[in-house]
Amino acid sequence: MISIGLDVGGTKVLGVAVDPRDPAVVLSEHRVPTPEGGVGLVDTLAGVVASLVGSASPPGAVGVGVPGLVDRSGRLRMGPHLRRVQNLPLASLVADRCGVPAVVDNDANCHAVAEHGGGAAVGADEALVVTLGTGIGAGIITGGRLLHGANGFAGEPGHMIVDPGGPPCPCGKRGCWERFASGTGLGRLARDAAAGGRLDAVVALAGGDAEAVRGEHVTAAARTGDGDALEVMGDFAGWIALGLANLVNILDPAVVVIGGGLVEAADLYLDEVRARFARLVMAGDHRPELPIVAAALGDRAGAIGAAVLAAEVAVS
Amino acid sequence: MISIGLDVGGTKVLGVAVDPRDPAVVLSEHRVPTPEGGVGLVDTLAGVVASLVGSASPPGAVGVGVPGLVDRSGRLRMGPHLRRVQNLPLASLVADRCGVPAVVDNDANCHAVAEHGGGAAVGADEALVVTLGTGIGAGIITGGRLLHGANGFAGEPGHMIVDPGGPPCPCGKRGCWERFASGTGLGRLARDAAAGGRLDAVVALAGGDAEAVRGEHVTAAARTGDGDALEVMGDFAGWIALGLANLVNILDPAVVVIGGGLVEAADLYLDEVRARFARLVMAGDHRPELPIVAAALGDRAGAIGAAVLAAEVAVS
Repeated sequence: MISIGLDVGGTKVLGVAVDPRDPAVVLSEHRVPTPEGGVGLVDTLAGVVASLVGSASPPGAVGVGVPGLVDRSGRLRMGPHLRRVQNLPLASLVADRCGVPAVVDNDANCHAVAEHGGGAAVGADEALVVTLGTGIGAGIITGGRLLHGANGFAGEPGHMIVDPGGPPCPCGKRGCWERFASGTGLGRLARDAAAGGRLDAVVALAGGDAEAVRGEHVTAAARTGDGDALEVMGDFAGWIALGLANLVNILDPAVVVIGGGLVEAADLYLDEVRARFARLVMAGDHRPELPIVAAALGDRAGAIGAAVLAAEVAVS
Repeated sequence: MISIGLDVGGTKVLGVAVDPRDPAVVLSEHRVPTPEGGVGLVDTLAGVVASLVGSASPPGAVGVGVPGLVDRSGRLRMGPHLRRVQNLPLASLVADRCGVPAVVDNDANCHAVAEHGGGAAVGADEALVVTLGTGIGAGIITGGRLLHGANGFAGEPGHMIVDPGGPPCPCGKRGCWERFASGTGLGRLARDAAAGGRLDAVVALAGGDAEAVRGEHVTAAARTGDGDALEVMGDFAGWIALGLANLVNILDPAVVVIGGGLVEAADLYLDEVRARFARLVMAGDHRPELPIVAAALGDRAGAIGAAVLAAEVAVS
């Protein structure tokens, strides 16, 4: 029986149909815009499911990945892009609308399930998947299963404070890891450097406005070999490595997988992340070398992982 | 059948005999000095076991908690106080010497097992136990079991970097959490304040030498209501709260238990830790309130937990 997974992003909802025995192979997919603020989200999700099912028999279950805090009943307590639908019992609403069981989990948790089931963390019963995008998410696999914690909120390292005197974060604190090691953080590091009079090539890519520099301008300039951009990428790699070292000290995974939108630029920072990580992790000389690798499933990982979680619900 | 647990501290080895069905009740105990650098450690441990067993029948197994990195085979890869015995196959050596199965784990992991089995974390299948002493250790319970990670090294937040420009750490990095939130960290915070001309009462307790101030001088002065000392305790509480918030964002436990030597001063900082934690954890408004409580089993928790782990080995 096919399984259906949906990934609710900041701008689009991606749905996939997979055979859960081989989830990395997507049988069909469908994309629609994410409704503004999340209004009408359940209608949107049901529409994607209907498009994927078509005239075939209904799926065994539907899985949904969403950014934010999802409790263990599948209630979205708080979603940064879905501010109009806080505290929404999404799993039960989707189940009622679609007429099949539904499971809802954090989007980075879904990424981790997908990479563990058919991607870069296959065979690792202890794995850490970190998604670097606009913000930072994580999914923690231990004993071969997702670590959910008491409420379902585990795996949120983006607001780990790594520099208490650092830049303010929209969350109200200062120096959260995602102020440095996300796409937003890369842009901020570059704007700070540009304000110091460097980064001419990067600023040119941003139309000549240092305040308009974003992460993508830095990666584009770094790809051309621009020295200033490469220096910013080095700082960026250092911040990624620092947060990963903190996480590895706590969790001791067998593999770290980097996913999310910034995985497309991994060739520009991953070697440097590995080198700096080895110096920052506790007692690095006494540990086996830890693989830090790019995700294998691309931007469909979240939807694939949601489909894998759905299959578990359908079976049980 | 009784179970025997040993806790190897920086200065002493404590052994206890318990009934694993009620491990919080210590049937007998024995203390000896920790051998300098760890030389002769196995002889010392065997002597404590022999003293506890006396003329009774041999225990089902022996458990040992040690500070440092212990791998899943019970090999001590690296111990800060046991520098002469790095990479020691302690579990197999103790088993051979004592003639019964032996299990060796990190001391903070043993604390967590004890508090989960018969202390402040009873009934919490997701729990975080943090030991604040000379350094910082942690034991993570998830799904009712210790989280060991791939190598057995999980639960080492003391070298989580929380201020990359902060004070140097003997580990070679800067701004590790235990530079701020351990007993050593409390002393350092106080010496920095004293160097600024404050903390007269604390410095007096240290014999008038600002460089000789240690954590115990701060807590002693704070107990008398000294304003400067209380201010340092407030900073100290803030650093404890910051690290706990980082850990809770990652692990989402149902309870946080504070153990280790500094638990004796918990009345001087725990309320402030709770208040600051609530402001530092991610999305505090959307979470149920998290209990942050003092450990219940005192300085015998490590040995008790080791005995509980021994009972599991003896049964299986």
